[in-house]
Amino acid sequence: MNREDLNLYLVTDKELANGKALEDIVEEAVKGGVSMVQIREKEANSKDFYQLARTVKKVLEKYKVPLIINDRLDIALAVDAEGLHIGQSDLPYDVARKILGPNKIIGLSVENIEQAKQANQLDVDYIGLSPVFSTQTKNDIAKPLELDGVKEIMSFSKHPAVAIGGINSANTADIIKAGADGIAVVSAIVCAKDPCNAAKELKEIINKSLSLKAIDS
Amino acid sequence: MNREDLNLYLVTDKELANGKALEDIVEEAVKGGVSMVQIREKEANSKDFYQLARTVKKVLEKYKVPLIINDRLDIALAVDAEGLHIGQSDLPYDVARKILGPNKIIGLSVENIEQAKQANQLDVDYIGLSPVFSTQTKNDIAKPLELDGVKEIMSFSKHPAVAIGGINSANTADIIKAGADGIAVVSAIVCAKDPCNAAKELKEIINKSLSLKAIDS
Repeated sequence: MNREDLNLYLVTDKELANGKALEDIVEEAVKGGVSMVQIREKEANSKDFYQLARTVKKVLEKYKVPLIINDRLDIALAVDAEGLHIGQSDLPYDVARKILGPNKIIGLSVENIEQAKQANQLDVDYIGLSPVFSTQTKNDIAKPLELDGVKEIMSFSKHPAVAIGGINSANTADIIKAGADGIAVVSAIVCAKDPCNAAKELKEIINKSLSLKAIDS
Repeated sequence: MNREDLNLYLVTDKELANGKALEDIVEEAVKGGVSMVQIREKEANSKDFYQLARTVKKVLEKYKVPLIINDRLDIALAVDAEGLHIGQSDLPYDVARKILGPNKIIGLSVENIEQAKQANQLDVDYIGLSPVFSTQTKNDIAKPLELDGVKEIMSFSKHPAVAIGGINSANTADIIKAGADGIAVVSAIVCAKDPCNAAKELKEIINKSLSLKAIDS
């Protein structure tokens, strides 16, 4: 995985797709600049999850964009995804790594400073800062980290990080400025009338913010 | 897997355990004659499922009773379970077999004659006839096969079969007589005041019915 793959990270939610085929949204989003895609399906049965992941993988292969599966290591194996994203209630990192091997991407959600410190002890490929702001996309959500939390974690984390939760074009620049390598969005792209344009707009802000950060440092 | 492992197959349901530790119920049940144990956790998160499976595996290893994981191939891999049980809405059989390899047990639920015929084309280790009778343990349930369905399927199936759904000490003999190799129970053992005795009682009926069948054939 390249650090840049985290720049604009799309997390899918079929419920929000409003009847539109998820693979079409993904393709438009990738054309607009999405650099990594995660499929998160907390309600689907294994068969449907597998079929969806296969369909999305075929789209992403054309664009050489990595596919990450949320939580379900079996689905990741079944479709030979590029990686797995685990949360604090999913399989332990060491168990997942042992099964997936050293070459697959494993990302870990951290919800507070303590978990970010623990992640520093693990050989994860990236961390997800979750949630940065409050969001309605996910249930069972922890207290938002806010920009201060992002800054603090990025001051000591040895891992690349993507921020997720309540992110849109209005706060993207602040998040990159706070030190995150990228933003992960769900509704900002999945619910957009034009996912390609929505991705383009976000990508421009990200690129601009990253250049400014490069000049500053 | 031996065909006899299917004789008395316990399927767990933490919800029915009524606060009692599932691993304790499993241990008592195995002492009473349970020959195979499946963990089914449709609601648990991956971390809890993994921890539960690990705990139950430790118990079963002492008694050399195979552990089967329902649906979640990743959990089966994570705890090195002896096998996986898949339903018609889970990962396709060929995908599961490819990942698990030839030495693990894979069982497949069939809900009607057509699915039992399709299973004959697959190299599954056993089939689950589901449901035989109506039951309240599982949602999204198909039309019961009844004893006639069991008889018909056993007349052509090349696989060993375990029957599940609404089975108790009153109908066990009929099911074995109808041709099944064994019965799978949830509440008949999990909800029993004394799981060891409940298992013993069922096992006696099964053994007696199997001997009668051996004499008949």
